[in-house]
Amino acid sequence: MKKLWQKENGKLNEFIETFETKDDLLLDQKLLKYDIQGSIAHAKMLYKIGILNFDEIKKIEKGLKEILDLDKKGSFKLKFGDEDVHTKIENYLTEKYGDVGKKIHTGRSRNDQILTAIRLFSKDKLSEIQKQILGLVQGFQLFSKKYGNIEMPGYTHMQKAMPSSLKLWSESFKDSLLDDLDLIKAVYKLNNQSPLGSAAGYGTTLNLDKEYSAKLMGFAKVQNNPLYCQNSRGKIEGAILASLISLLQTINKFASDIMLFTTSEFDFFKVEENLTTGSSIMPQKKNIDVAELSRSKVHLVLGNYVQIASLSSNLISGYNRDLQDSKKPLIESLEITLDSIKVTRILLENLFPNEDGLKSSMTEELYAADQAYELVKKGMSFRDAYKQIKEGGEKDENKH
Amino acid sequence: MKKLWQKENGKLNEFIETFETKDDLLLDQKLLKYDIQGSIAHAKMLYKIGILNFDEIKKIEKGLKEILDLDKKGSFKLKFGDEDVHTKIENYLTEKYGDVGKKIHTGRSRNDQILTAIRLFSKDKLSEIQKQILGLVQGFQLFSKKYGNIEMPGYTHMQKAMPSSLKLWSESFKDSLLDDLDLIKAVYKLNNQSPLGSAAGYGTTLNLDKEYSAKLMGFAKVQNNPLYCQNSRGKIEGAILASLISLLQTINKFASDIMLFTTSEFDFFKVEENLTTGSSIMPQKKNIDVAELSRSKVHLVLGNYVQIASLSSNLISGYNRDLQDSKKPLIESLEITLDSIKVTRILLENLFPNEDGLKSSMTEELYAADQAYELVKKGMSFRDAYKQIKEGGEKDENKH
Amino acid sequence: MKKLWQKENGKLNEFIETFETKDDLLLDQKLLKYDIQGSIAHAKMLYKIGILNFDEIKKIEKGLKEILDLDKKGSFKLKFGDEDVHTKIENYLTEKYGDVGKKIHTGRSRNDQILTAIRLFSKDKLSEIQKQILGLVQGFQLFSKKYGNIEMPGYTHMQKAMPSSLKLWSESFKDSLLDDLDLIKAVYKLNNQSPLGSAAGYGTTLNLDKEYSAKLMGFAKVQNNPLYCQNSRGKIEGAILASLISLLQTINKFASDIMLFTTSEFDFFKVEENLTTGSSIMPQKKNIDVAELSRSKVHLVLGNYVQIASLSSNLISGYNRDLQDSKKPLIESLEITLDSIKVTRILLENLFPNEDGLKSSMTEELYAADQAYELVKKGMSFRDAYKQIKEGGEKDENKH
Amino acid sequence: MKKLWQKENGKLNEFIETFETKDDLLLDQKLLKYDIQGSIAHAKMLYKIGILNFDEIKKIEKGLKEILDLDKKGSFKLKFGDEDVHTKIENYLTEKYGDVGKKIHTGRSRNDQILTAIRLFSKDKLSEIQKQILGLVQGFQLFSKKYGNIEMPGYTHMQKAMPSSLKLWSESFKDSLLDDLDLIKAVYKLNNQSPLGSAAGYGTTLNLDKEYSAKLMGFAKVQNNPLYCQNSRGKIEGAILASLISLLQTINKFASDIMLFTTSEFDFFKVEENLTTGSSIMPQKKNIDVAELSRSKVHLVLGNYVQIASLSSNLISGYNRDLQDSKKPLIESLEITLDSIKVTRILLENLFPNEDGLKSSMTEELYAADQAYELVKKGMSFRDAYKQIKEGGEKDENKH
Repeated sequence: MKKLWQKENGKLNEFIETFETKDDLLLDQKLLKYDIQGSIAHAKMLYKIGILNFDEIKKIEKGLKEILDLDKKGSFKLKFGDEDVHTKIENYLTEKYGDVGKKIHTGRSRNDQILTAIRLFSKDKLSEIQKQILGLVQGFQLFSKKYGNIEMPGYTHMQKAMPSSLKLWSESFKDSLLDDLDLIKAVYKLNNQSPLGSAAGYGTTLNLDKEYSAKLMGFAKVQNNPLYCQNSRGKIEGAILASLISLLQTINKFASDIMLFTTSEFDFFKVEENLTTGSSIMPQKKNIDVAELSRSKVHLVLGNYVQIASLSSNLISGYNRDLQDSKKPLIESLEITLDSIKVTRILLENLFPNEDGLKSSMTEELYAADQAYELVKKGMSFRDAYKQIKEGGEKDENKH
Repeated sequence: MKKLWQKENGKLNEFIETFETKDDLLLDQKLLKYDIQGSIAHAKMLYKIGILNFDEIKKIEKGLKEILDLDKKGSFKLKFGDEDVHTKIENYLTEKYGDVGKKIHTGRSRNDQILTAIRLFSKDKLSEIQKQILGLVQGFQLFSKKYGNIEMPGYTHMQKAMPSSLKLWSESFKDSLLDDLDLIKAVYKLNNQSPLGSAAGYGTTLNLDKEYSAKLMGFAKVQNNPLYCQNSRGKIEGAILASLISLLQTINKFASDIMLFTTSEFDFFKVEENLTTGSSIMPQKKNIDVAELSRSKVHLVLGNYVQIASLSSNLISGYNRDLQDSKKPLIESLEITLDSIKVTRILLENLFPNEDGLKSSMTEELYAADQAYELVKKGMSFRDAYKQIKEGGEKDENKH
Repeated sequence: MKKLWQKENGKLNEFIETFETKDDLLLDQKLLKYDIQGSIAHAKMLYKIGILNFDEIKKIEKGLKEILDLDKKGSFKLKFGDEDVHTKIENYLTEKYGDVGKKIHTGRSRNDQILTAIRLFSKDKLSEIQKQILGLVQGFQLFSKKYGNIEMPGYTHMQKAMPSSLKLWSESFKDSLLDDLDLIKAVYKLNNQSPLGSAAGYGTTLNLDKEYSAKLMGFAKVQNNPLYCQNSRGKIEGAILASLISLLQTINKFASDIMLFTTSEFDFFKVEENLTTGSSIMPQKKNIDVAELSRSKVHLVLGNYVQIASLSSNLISGYNRDLQDSKKPLIESLEITLDSIKVTRILLENLFPNEDGLKSSMTEELYAADQAYELVKKGMSFRDAYKQIKEGGEKDENKH
Repeated sequence: MKKLWQKENGKLNEFIETFETKDDLLLDQKLLKYDIQGSIAHAKMLYKIGILNFDEIKKIEKGLKEILDLDKKGSFKLKFGDEDVHTKIENYLTEKYGDVGKKIHTGRSRNDQILTAIRLFSKDKLSEIQKQILGLVQGFQLFSKKYGNIEMPGYTHMQKAMPSSLKLWSESFKDSLLDDLDLIKAVYKLNNQSPLGSAAGYGTTLNLDKEYSAKLMGFAKVQNNPLYCQNSRGKIEGAILASLISLLQTINKFASDIMLFTTSEFDFFKVEENLTTGSSIMPQKKNIDVAELSRSKVHLVLGNYVQIASLSSNLISGYNRDLQDSKKPLIESLEITLDSIKVTRILLENLFPNEDGLKSSMTEELYAADQAYELVKKGMSFRDAYKQIKEGGEKDENKH
C-alpha cells in the first residue's frame, strides 16, 4: 500500500522496509481500536473548529466504525507494505469515502497520533491492572481470614528465626499490593494527559481545540508543550514499567515463597493438582510451574525497562524513530503483568496449608528472642538477656 | 570491636569479614546521623513505655549526641572490625555509660534499625531533590522569559522539521521537570513510612509504641506488617531509583541538546568559558564536559536500578543479607542525582543563545508544513495540499 | 492435545495453561526443524545401542521428515493445547506409526531435548552472523578504498579536534567488527557442546552413546556433566547475547555517526533516496529511519540480556521452569542482530560522501596540535609548544 | 593544581570541578601504578625515536619510580584540584626535573594514556582471576574426591526428581568454571592490545614506534586504528564485565544451593562456625552471610554492565567524556569478582556434608524414572513404562 509521503515511482528498499515495519505492524494491530478512538475524537474536534463539515464528519465516523467492526472480525489485518496503522486507516477512508479521507490527517502527525494511541492503550491496561490488584488484595484477606491463626516459622537468612503466622505472611502481600497500587495510580495520572494536537512535536498554525479532543478521549488534561509530548516518549513508558516492576516484585516474592514452602522438605502447602504439570520422564512429578513462570516475570519487565530507558537516552529533543522500539516492551509488559496478577490469584485460591507440616516445624529455637524479652520484662538489659539465652542454647546444643 | 552476637572466643574469618563489611562501613558512615536520629526516637519510645527510666534516657540521649558531634568532626570513623554502625554505637554507649547501652537495642533488630536509617536518609535527599527541581524549573522559566521569542529550528529524526523557538524548547524541560516532581512526590510518600519496631521482620512480644517513634522521626505513618517491612527492601529503593531515572532522563535530554547545539556546525549556543575544560594535546579545545558527565548519569542510575531489582528478586520472604548490597546503589544514586540537578542549573545559567547562528538556521524548508496548512485554510484537503507543496519543493531541488 | 504426563481425566486449568504456553508455542515453531534434527540424531543413537530396531528407526526417520515437510508448508502449526514441540512430535509419531512413537523419548527428557534444539538454533544463527560480519567488513574495506583519501574532521567531545579521513573513519568500523567476530567465535565454541543425553539433568541408567549423537548433529564435543547442562542454561545464552551486544555497539556507533553526519548542518554524507522515508505532515522530509532503527537495536539486546541474566540467578541447581522465559530473548536477539548487520550493509552501500561539505569543514583549528608537533620536531618541549599555539589561537579569537 | 590546558587566570567553576572529578580521583589512585608503567614505556619509546635524550629518559624514569614509591607509602594522594592522575604526574616531573616533565606528554593524549592504564589494570586483574579460577576448580575436584560417592537427591522445579551425588553436584561447578575460564581468556585477548600512540583518537604526525611501547608493556599487539581505540571504550569494558557475569553466575548457583541445602529443613551441609555470623536479636542464629553476599554479586556486575553498555551507546565516534563514567563499574567489577572467587573457595573448604541428612533424603520417588528404564530394558516402550510406573505411584499415594 502506498505510503503517505511516497512519490509516484518512489519505492523503499524491500529489506529495509521489512526491517522497519515487521514487528511494528503486529503491535499496531493491538493499537488499532485505540487509534480509531483517537481519530474519532480528532475528527469531531475538526468539525467543531470548522475544518470538517457535518457531512464529512458523519462519513468519517461511519468509516472508522466500519474499520472497528472489520478489526473485531479479524478482517482488517495490517500486512507487509502497509506502513503503519495510521496510513492504512487514512487510505481506507480515502478509497471508500473520497476526499474526506484526505482531511482526517489535518492538524496532526503520525507522531502525536501514535502517542495518543499508546496513551489510550496504557490507560486501559493500567485501569484493568488496578482492578485486578484489588481482587488479589481481597484474595489475601480471605486467605488470612481462613487460615490466619495457623502458626508458621519466620525466616531470616533462610534460617528459622522467629515465630510467625499465616496471617502475618499473607497480609504482608496484601500491604505490598496496596503500596504497588499507589505507585500505579501515580503513573496512571502521569500517563493521563492528551498529546493530540502536538503534531510532529512543534504544534500547528491551525487553531486546534486540544482541550475538546482530550475530553472526548477521557484524558484528565492536555499535555501542553508539543515538544515535551515527544520528549516524554520513553520517559512515561519507563515510569509505567517501573510501577509494574514493583507489582511483579510482590508477585515474585509470593512465588518464591511458594516454590520453597511446597518442597517436600518444607511441606507447608499443597497446591490443587489441576494447577500442576508433570514430567515427560519422571512419572512421579507434580510441578508448580505456574509459580516459576510468574516468578520470572519481574525479570522480563526489568529487561524491557532497560530497553526503553536505554534506547531513549542520549537522543536530542524531538521525535527520533528509535522510539518505535519502545512500543513492544511497553505493550508486552502491560500484558504480562495483567496475566501475572490473574494467575497469582488462581494460584492463591488453590493453595492449602498443610497444618501438620506447619505445626511440626514450630521448633524450640524460634522462641529464643521471645525468651530474652521475658527477661527484659523482668528488668534485665536486653544485651545481657540475649547472652544468657545464647549461652543456654549452646550448652543444650553441646549436650546432643 | 566485638560483634553483638560474638562468643568470647569466636572469631570470624578475616577475609570473609572484609568481604562482608568493607564497602558497607563507608556507607554506614553516611547513615550515621540518621541512625542516631532513629536511636533517639527509639529510646524515647522505650522511656514512654517504661523500659527505660528517666536517668537512662538522659544518658542515652547524651551519648548519642556526643557521637553526632564526634561524627561531625570526623572522629567517629567506622573501621575494619566494626561490624556495622549499629554495633559501634551500642558499644560506645555501653563503654561510656554502662548497662544502659545494653538496653538501647531492646525491641529492635539491626534489620529494622538499618531500614529506618535508610528511609530517613532517602527522605532527606528526596526533599532536597524536590527543592532543587523547583529551582531548576525557575531557571528554565527565566531562560524562556529572557530568550523565549528567539526562533530556532525544530528537529525530527535529527533533521530540520518545523519552526520552533527557545520558548518552546526551554519550556519543554520545565514541563518535564514538573512531571518528574510528581513521580518523586509519589515515591517520597511510599518511603515515608516507619519500619521501626518491626524488629527482625516478625515484630516483638514487647508492647512497643510504633506510632510514637514514627511521629518523633517525622514519618507520615507506621508500616504495620513487620514482614512487609523487610519484603519492601529492594522494592521501595527500586521505586526511588526509577523516579530518579525519570528526572535524569530530562537532564539527559537537555545535555544531549546542548552537546549538539554547541558544535561549531550548529552553533546555536555558547557556554561561559569557566564551565569548559581544555585538552592536554589540542590547544584550541573548549569542551563542555559538564554536559557529557550529566548526560551519562541516567545510565549509572539505570544500572544501579538493575542491581537493586535483580538482587532482591527470587528471594524468599524475610531478611536476606543480599539486601545489604542495595545500600550502595541507593545512596550513590540519590547523591548523583542531587549533584546532577545542581550542575544542570549552573550550566543553564551560563548558557547564551547565539542569535545570529539561530537566525541563519531558519531556512525555508522548515515552513513547508505551514504552507500546506495555508492551503488547508483555503479549503484544500490536507493530503492534496501536502502533495502540492512536496512536488513544488522537489522541482525547486531539481533546479539546483 | 494430550500432555505426556497427563492422566485420563486430568486437566490443567485453562488460563494457567495459556499463561504457561502462549508465547512459547510460537517460539517452539521456530525451533521445530532443530528439534527434528536432534530427534533424528537421538533415534539413530538408540538404534546404534540396540533400543530401536531397523524397522523402528526407519519409521521414525520417515515420520520426522514428514513433519519437516509439513512444517515447511506451514501445515504443522503448534496451537493452544499442544504442550510443546516435543510433545506434538511424539504424539504425531505415535498416532501415525504406533508404538514406535512411544520409544523416541527413551533416555531423554524434554529438558535436554529443548536445550539441544536451542543450541542447534544458536549454532546456525551464529554461523550466519559470522558470514554476514565478514561481508560487512568487506563493505567497509571497499568504502575505504573508494573514498579513503577524502579528509574529514575528527571529533572529541563532539567538537572538531584533529584532521581525520574517511579511511581512518571507515576502517575503525572494520577493526571493530573483526574484534566482534573474535568474541562471537568464542561464544560459538562455548555453545558448541551437545547436552543430549543429560536427560532431566541427572543422566539415565541407560547406556547412551552421547559422543555419537553429538557427532551426528555436528557438535564439537559432549557437555559431560548432566547437571551442568541444565545449570549452563541462562549462562550460555547470556554469553551469546553479550557477544551480540558488542557487535551491535559497533553498528550503533556507525548509525550514530550517520545520523549526525547527514544533518544539513554537518552535511558530510548523502544516502540513496530509496532508503529514506518521508513524513505524513512535513512534505520536505527525507529521513534515514534505518539508521535510527539500527541504532536502537543494541538497547533491545541489552534489555534481553538483563532478562536472561536476572531470571536465571538466585535459582538452585537443576532445571527450573523460569528458564523457559530465556528462549524468547535469545531467539529474538539472534534474529535482530542478523537483520541489523544486513541493513547496515545496505546502508553503507548507499552512502555517498559529500566532498564539498567535507572539504569546507576542514577548518584551521583542526591543525593546532599538528602545529605544536612541528615545534616539538624543532626541539621545543611539548607543553611549551602547546602553550605557544594555544595563546596564539586565543589572540586570533580576540581579534574577531 | 594547575590543569594542563589552563590559562593563567582561567578557573573552572568549583562545583562543576567537584562534579567532574570527585569519584574519578579515587579511581585514578588505583590506576596510578599502571599509568606509571605506561609512562615509562612511552618515555623509553620517545628516547628510542630520538625525542628524548639519554639524560632526559633517566630523569623521567627516576621521577616516575619516585612517584611509585610515594604511592606505595600512601604519600602521592590525588586530591581535589588535581585534574587527573596524568596531570598530577606531569606536574610532579616538571616541578622536580624541569623541562623534561613537559616532554613526557609528547605524542600522546590523556585519551590514549588513560586507556592504556585501564587496559593494563584489566590485564592484571584478569590474570589474577584466571589463577583464582584454577584454584577453585581444584577445590571442587578435591571436594568431589573426598565426598563424591555420597548420594544426594537431584532437583527439578525445586522438587525431588532423580538420584544424584555429591560428585555430580560438585563437578557441575568445576565444569562451569572451566567454561567461564575460556570466556575470560577470550576477553583477555581482546583487552590485550595496546592503544598507546593513538593520542586523542586521530594519531599524531610524529613517527611513534607503537610496536615498541606495546612490547615493553607486555601487550600482544598494537590496536592500530586510533579512532577504533577510542571507539572500543565501553565495548571492551563491556565484554570484560560480561565474562565476569558468567563466572559470577556460577558462584551464584553454588551460593544459592548452599543457602537452600543448609536450611534446617534440608540439612545437607554444615558450614564451619567461624564463617557464620549471628543476630543482634535472636541468640540462636548462625547465618551463612558469606553465601548471601557472594550470591548477590552477579547482580552488581550486571548493573555495572548495563551502565557501561548504556552510557557508551548513541554517542558518535571519538572520545566523549561520558566514557569516564565507565571506569568505576569496570574497576569495581574486577575487584568484586576477584574477592568473590576467593570467598567461594574459603566457603567450599569449610563445607561439610551431613551424611545422615543426605541419606535420609534419598526417598523412593527419586527412583521412578529408573524403574521405568528397567521396564524399557525388558522391551517395553518408554511411554508405556512411564505410564505403568506413574499409575502405580498414584495408587500407592491414594492408599495413604
